[in-house]
Amino acid sequence: MDYYSSQITKLIEELGKLPGIGPKSAGRLAFHIINMPHDQVKHLSESILDAKENVHYCRECCTLTDQDICPICSSSKRDHSTIMVVESTRDLMAYEKTGKYEGIYHVLHGAISPMLGIGPSDIRLKELMARLQGDVKELIIATNSSLEGETTAMYISKLVKPTGIKVSKIASGVPVGGDLEYIDEVTLLRALEGRTEL
Amino acid sequence: MDYYSSQITKLIEELGKLPGIGPKSAGRLAFHIINMPHDQVKHLSESILDAKENVHYCRECCTLTDQDICPICSSSKRDHSTIMVVESTRDLMAYEKTGKYEGIYHVLHGAISPMLGIGPSDIRLKELMARLQGDVKELIIATNSSLEGETTAMYISKLVKPTGIKVSKIASGVPVGGDLEYIDEVTLLRALEGRTEL
Repeated sequence: MDYYSSQITKLIEELGKLPGIGPKSAGRLAFHIINMPHDQVKHLSESILDAKENVHYCRECCTLTDQDICPICSSSKRDHSTIMVVESTRDLMAYEKTGKYEGIYHVLHGAISPMLGIGPSDIRLKELMARLQGDVKELIIATNSSLEGETTAMYISKLVKPTGIKVSKIASGVPVGGDLEYIDEVTLLRALEGRTEL
Repeated sequence: MDYYSSQITKLIEELGKLPGIGPKSAGRLAFHIINMPHDQVKHLSESILDAKENVHYCRECCTLTDQDICPICSSSKRDHSTIMVVESTRDLMAYEKTGKYEGIYHVLHGAISPMLGIGPSDIRLKELMARLQGDVKELIIATNSSLEGETTAMYISKLVKPTGIKVSKIASGVPVGGDLEYIDEVTLLRALEGRTEL
């Protein structure tokens, strides 16, 4: 493919490395970018480098932030005795958007997966254990409801229980607005097991 | 949304401006970029700016190129008496990939669309007309088979015919491998009209 000029080929190649962007989408994006106003292209290019260079892990909870300690960890309005453990900064954001969770977080950046060769030392577990030295009262595990998420939840629970800290896990069940007919059997059984008295 | 650090928010915003990338995809891409190796991020960022800065229209056929005259126009192996008119550089590429077209091209960069307020002067028609002064024998119109493409084809045909140059249009019909059952009526009628004797 040296039909295009080398710059276009290179751009298509780089865009095609991004997740969910195949060769066709990469081509479409590349030509869109070439036709964008120069200013906008500069902003896009700069924001990519800027995010990479200035964003790192929070020294407390390991979320992605441009500060030494993230705004949530440094806020005095949050309940620092409750830590919610999530797999990624995006999961943290999902809970943060509800606006109802008052505690703080811990971001693992992954989940234990023997299949993919990801062990406990490959995620931010050591950092989590170090935080439990303080006056933490409850650890809420909010890993994904996948095999890896469940494995990680189990592992953390076993690790933390001896310390006497309360360990809980967010409920799995039928999503609000969900139609029973379209929900998988495992979820239906989980919802049954987790039924609460009215 | 100042949940994220400003750099992440900015990156999500810039990525979200690209076609076919909604807020969710933009978030996913942004976090992927932040987790990419530094080198790769640099390459991505640079290739965007590089493509924008060094790619422009070919002085002859208006395709996107980093040279003054594109490799196709400057090739002595191509038949310079046959010009195929396409809407975009990507359409040019589609024909170029067949490897069977020997002529040269002209890229309009759009199609006439009264609905969107795109008139004949908004696409590279003036440049096309200027090229017809030479020893051009045939103009093959390969605009898209859309309302805009057809309008453009008709317009060019009317404009060029008085010059005596042969004007043709690529066939519309059932795509190879296409199942009649799933093909729309307009295409079926076109295929019927354009039937050839065996």
